[in-house]
Amino acid sequence: MEKPTLPKGTRDFGPSTMAKRQFIFNTIRTVFQKFGFQPLETPAMENLSTLTGKYGEEGDQLLFKILNSGDFLKDVAPQKIESRSSKLITSEIAEKGLRYDLTVPFARYVVMNRHEISFPFKRYQIQPVWRADRPQKGRYREFYQCDADVVGTNSLICEAEIILMITEVFKGLGIHDYTIKINHRGILSGIAETIGACENETALFAAIDKLDKIGEEKVKDELRAKGFSEKSLTNLFEILNAKGSTPEKISFLTKFFDNSEHGKKGLNDLQEVFTLLKSYGADDAHVEFDVALARGLSYYTGCIFEVKINNVSIGSVSGGGRYDNLTQTFGDKENLSGVGFSFGVDRLYDALEELQAFPKETRLSSKVLICHFDAETLQYGLALLQHFRAANIASEIYPDVSKLKKQLEYANKKGVAYTLVVGSEEVKSGALTLKNMDTGEQEKLTLHEIIQKLQ
Amino acid sequence: MEKPTLPKGTRDFGPSTMAKRQFIFNTIRTVFQKFGFQPLETPAMENLSTLTGKYGEEGDQLLFKILNSGDFLKDVAPQKIESRSSKLITSEIAEKGLRYDLTVPFARYVVMNRHEISFPFKRYQIQPVWRADRPQKGRYREFYQCDADVVGTNSLICEAEIILMITEVFKGLGIHDYTIKINHRGILSGIAETIGACENETALFAAIDKLDKIGEEKVKDELRAKGFSEKSLTNLFEILNAKGSTPEKISFLTKFFDNSEHGKKGLNDLQEVFTLLKSYGADDAHVEFDVALARGLSYYTGCIFEVKINNVSIGSVSGGGRYDNLTQTFGDKENLSGVGFSFGVDRLYDALEELQAFPKETRLSSKVLICHFDAETLQYGLALLQHFRAANIASEIYPDVSKLKKQLEYANKKGVAYTLVVGSEEVKSGALTLKNMDTGEQEKLTLHEIIQKLQ
Repeated sequence: MEKPTLPKGTRDFGPSTMAKRQFIFNTIRTVFQKFGFQPLETPAMENLSTLTGKYGEEGDQLLFKILNSGDFLKDVAPQKIESRSSKLITSEIAEKGLRYDLTVPFARYVVMNRHEISFPFKRYQIQPVWRADRPQKGRYREFYQCDADVVGTNSLICEAEIILMITEVFKGLGIHDYTIKINHRGILSGIAETIGACENETALFAAIDKLDKIGEEKVKDELRAKGFSEKSLTNLFEILNAKGSTPEKISFLTKFFDNSEHGKKGLNDLQEVFTLLKSYGADDAHVEFDVALARGLSYYTGCIFEVKINNVSIGSVSGGGRYDNLTQTFGDKENLSGVGFSFGVDRLYDALEELQAFPKETRLSSKVLICHFDAETLQYGLALLQHFRAANIASEIYPDVSKLKKQLEYANKKGVAYTLVVGSEEVKSGALTLKNMDTGEQEKLTLHEIIQKLQ
Repeated sequence: MEKPTLPKGTRDFGPSTMAKRQFIFNTIRTVFQKFGFQPLETPAMENLSTLTGKYGEEGDQLLFKILNSGDFLKDVAPQKIESRSSKLITSEIAEKGLRYDLTVPFARYVVMNRHEISFPFKRYQIQPVWRADRPQKGRYREFYQCDADVVGTNSLICEAEIILMITEVFKGLGIHDYTIKINHRGILSGIAETIGACENETALFAAIDKLDKIGEEKVKDELRAKGFSEKSLTNLFEILNAKGSTPEKISFLTKFFDNSEHGKKGLNDLQEVFTLLKSYGADDAHVEFDVALARGLSYYTGCIFEVKINNVSIGSVSGGGRYDNLTQTFGDKENLSGVGFSFGVDRLYDALEELQAFPKETRLSSKVLICHFDAETLQYGLALLQHFRAANIASEIYPDVSKLKKQLEYANKKGVAYTLVVGSEEVKSGALTLKNMDTGEQEKLTLHEIIQKLQ
């Protein structure tokens, strides 16, 4: 039999990776809960009718589809089968798919539970998503997202709190050099109006979105190819290259937006978010108003965010924004405004590794391993063990009678903090030797003293 | 557009359910870690070559299979397509499936990472599994399992610690009336030898396994139909109906097992587990040696466990045992002995609901909601909020300027413990009124006093 393998783009997370991942999850979850967000979990499988058409054509291609159970071909029309068209047959043999993100299942949940939910509804969701993407460095077919959203209010307090939450998560993770970029769809629309590109918003925003990656000249080339005039491009970059503090940028832009309601609304909202941050007495040192931030997804309608950790290879770890049409796609008539953001755990993980910023205590291992030599010392060890556990100290005993060297090696490999070697002398005297496995230091202590030390 | 629905047999978990589920998960995880088990997570998708053939023919039918991406029909031979045989085509168009349990992925992980793992390897795994079963009360197509296993040692300390862990989990959950049934495959084999049914072990164990549900007479009928003689049935029930304490049962059985090595080994192991429990100084009041416990799965080779909560409708919430051939199925030559058990979270949840045993504090909601009347009091509220959060108190402010009644209703529905109404007088004096939303009690306090009270 061949050695088993993992499906492409998927990973196992062994104990040491899991410990670090749990550190990230716990940090994020704690902050979400501290800000009044409550947990939601939705099933891995959704009906394809729920998922299809929500992520663009490319997204539909990337959905993992689940083969119907039983004799799935039974009711497929013969001509469809004979056509050999995978596309035609898919919808006949697969009704369900794996979720692609956490936003669409959330919207589905809100629509289905509308009358039980008390709005504004603040929910967080930490679950894996699946995409049949071509795997590459930093891109997987199964990965976790951590989302927090509020629906049912237009209040910009939500936007301010997103900034506060991001700040607090980074503090908890021990990441200090990062930037929270903020912009507003209204400002982008205002720019489009100002340069006379209202009809070409999509192309304009898509090009702006790449500015960071491809630079001014290539963005201009791309827009020229789409028919933008030289004058409009000059105007555009006069705005995009605005320098200065946030108030300076805002007053600079105000001059352009005399005739743009969208632009004025965008600037007002942004101004209000910064004013709110002051009312909290919060630090906005990491927040940067970036006129060139566009974000790909078309469903944003208000503030948009993107968070970048500076000086690491893949710095973009979080993004989000306000959307006004979350539930419309499910035929909901009442518009529910929402705003949310998402952390990518895999990228946070990679960044923390690169910065060597994981705290040492993330390890999830026993505090102490009891070692022994024979049936008698083992038996004595079991009684000790029961005392440690009664004191809530994670602890274990080596389960076999083995050479001491092997037992200590086990402790070492597993990252157990202390070992306690029980010999016949220890059984007689009750004086125990506790060894710190990191420093090699040894101390002679009573059981009571050891418990106090390890608690 | 039609209202969206959930796939059959799947569920959303909203905030209040999630809070209770997290209480169960946290209780189990804490105990697993306290006993030196370390976390593992494996991907939702496994290659079908990993999963198929591991759960019997029925299990294979219940695997959710994932349609290959892209033009999945391209390379399927025309005659296969024309055959219209779902069975023939499945393996051509689906390479991956969703995991069916946590044991097979664990075995796959051990085989793939054999040289990095330090044995004995104690891992726990808390993840959902998927089965295309017919949904019914208490049976879902997506459900969580919580497994803990040790591989790489024969030590019966592991069996004793399974009992200790189960005991501690139930203590943590607040469940007091339960039974940990224990038996041994060797004892069952010994019984088969004793009654002359060595050749018919599978039929015998399958029938015994149903004794609880269908009773003695129907088990006898079933075995008669399989050709068991009256004498063998009389002998069988003389053994199965053995009454008395564990030592009494053991000495009763010893008389039958003079010529059965399996039987002797089983009794010795069991005796040793009870002796070990004594060495720990542990309580074995909930442990019951049940000669009639058989457990369906054929891969067990040593001790077997089943845990039943008494006086609830679906009491069987956990089971497990020792197996000697975990990795053999993946072509592993060295035999790794392992022992493990699994908690079913959904059944624990239902039992806790039925017993009304969930602690009230499982709710995951803000400690305090700040209510306000206008821009000025809202602004003052934001500053207060920042103080609460700095003190790690989960807290929020109502994000819109609304009627007080609406704000209090929101707090009520969300299960927020306290509200703080900020009026213009409060802004002037700094004397704040804290209202306990459970009792209706109100207190006038300073910010500092409130923080001390809520921390």
